[in-house]
Amino acid sequence: MVAPGGRIAPEVGQETLALAASLYPNGEVQIHFDPQCFVSQGHFAGDDETRINAFVAAANDPSFDAVWFGRGGYGAVRMAEKAIARLRPAAGGKTYLGYSDMGALLGALYKAGIGKPVHGPMPGDMKREGGAAAVARSLAYLVGGDASALEPSRDGDAPRLAYNMAVLSSVLGSPLEPPMGGHVLMLEEVGEYMYRTDRYLFHITSAASVRSVAGIRLGRVSAVPANDPDFGLIDEEVMIHWCERAGIPYLGRADIGHDIENKIVPFGRS
Amino acid sequence: MVAPGGRIAPEVGQETLALAASLYPNGEVQIHFDPQCFVSQGHFAGDDETRINAFVAAANDPSFDAVWFGRGGYGAVRMAEKAIARLRPAAGGKTYLGYSDMGALLGALYKAGIGKPVHGPMPGDMKREGGAAAVARSLAYLVGGDASALEPSRDGDAPRLAYNMAVLSSVLGSPLEPPMGGHVLMLEEVGEYMYRTDRYLFHITSAASVRSVAGIRLGRVSAVPANDPDFGLIDEEVMIHWCERAGIPYLGRADIGHDIENKIVPFGRS
Repeated sequence: MVAPGGRIAPEVGQETLALAASLYPNGEVQIHFDPQCFVSQGHFAGDDETRINAFVAAANDPSFDAVWFGRGGYGAVRMAEKAIARLRPAAGGKTYLGYSDMGALLGALYKAGIGKPVHGPMPGDMKREGGAAAVARSLAYLVGGDASALEPSRDGDAPRLAYNMAVLSSVLGSPLEPPMGGHVLMLEEVGEYMYRTDRYLFHITSAASVRSVAGIRLGRVSAVPANDPDFGLIDEEVMIHWCERAGIPYLGRADIGHDIENKIVPFGRS
Repeated sequence: MVAPGGRIAPEVGQETLALAASLYPNGEVQIHFDPQCFVSQGHFAGDDETRINAFVAAANDPSFDAVWFGRGGYGAVRMAEKAIARLRPAAGGKTYLGYSDMGALLGALYKAGIGKPVHGPMPGDMKREGGAAAVARSLAYLVGGDASALEPSRDGDAPRLAYNMAVLSSVLGSPLEPPMGGHVLMLEEVGEYMYRTDRYLFHITSAASVRSVAGIRLGRVSAVPANDPDFGLIDEEVMIHWCERAGIPYLGRADIGHDIENKIVPFGRS
């Protein structure tokens, strides 16, 4: 467990270990929290170099099967490019699991063809009411590949990507932008005014690379602050507006979001 | 006067006309507020078609010397591309003046080589304490080309651009992105958490097109909400970090921002 963005509260670490012990009493899963997860340096769980080092050490350690990110926050774009440049072959055999800000790192790993990047719940979700169910979902996927943990929509056998809108917007045109041609792109958002979601979707759907996707699915857009006056359109109307203007097929909803129902989306073909 | 984003409060219109009448009592300036400025449709000063029509009518009317935008808000990206496609030769002889969200439209006009796009105060600035001074600055520039209204930094005779960071981030890679090669790019921000400013600057300085600028100047980054814990870096440290990583010369401060000191920056060579 490493935290490329914000730090993890110590009780989140303890609760995650207790959950894993109760669900897998025979030691099927062993979780190691790198001490970096609990470091605090301004906004981040340690400075850039500290976060890079912790991620690189975990990814390059052949004794780990997966690198599970502790939580999102913000910080992945500051460390992803430098960290990926330091990965060795042992990093290629792993699953990398997280979402939200971690999308910037997951997409860069996907672009580099390193391991199996996966969108899904993180220990930080323990903070949500009923969050243990979300954390248990990722554990079930990591330990046994639980198919019921997967986001259920199917669009032929198109490869898939899942992103927070603000995070995808911030990596477009950067070295962290993932290959998107022919993919189903799932997008979710949290805590943004609807006018900002509208602006992010203008930006995202205007990119030539995004216009090469097979289609877009809309995850949940939650905790939207009240607009005064009301924005006038709801999330799906905004999404359909921009998909139509961009000539991108809108494929319907996706079962992802910043909530305890957030499902697993392996990047690419699962 | 048109409002491609949010509506103008009626008293702002009245105060602007009164200010112009007191500063130019011999009728040197005549301001026409299109009724669209005061319309309200959800978040916007009228729906997209209404805002497009008002802008196109003003721009194509040869009896106007300038199109002064009433305020920012949000909405220019929804109308800019369609509006510009409808401009006729009379639009080419005008000055277009505004900032903030209007940057999306100004940059698109600049890309299309239409008229003279200019960053500067708008009637909406009347709402600020002492805002009449800012509005008077734009009037002085529009009426007599007042040189003291201009942003004072000089970097050889490099052409210049001025943008809000969130707005520039949202147009990168879109049809509204301006040509930036060899330009001095001035960037300001308001009301954003410092981690968001950091993310916007990652995005902006990662773009190949931005990496072709002559350099970046930092305007004011104001009304930053408190980060908990403190972000750990101030605005200029963040800017220097990303400029260094991107190999972009950082040229120092620019006298622009969401405040009454906001100076005039004609796009290109003034």
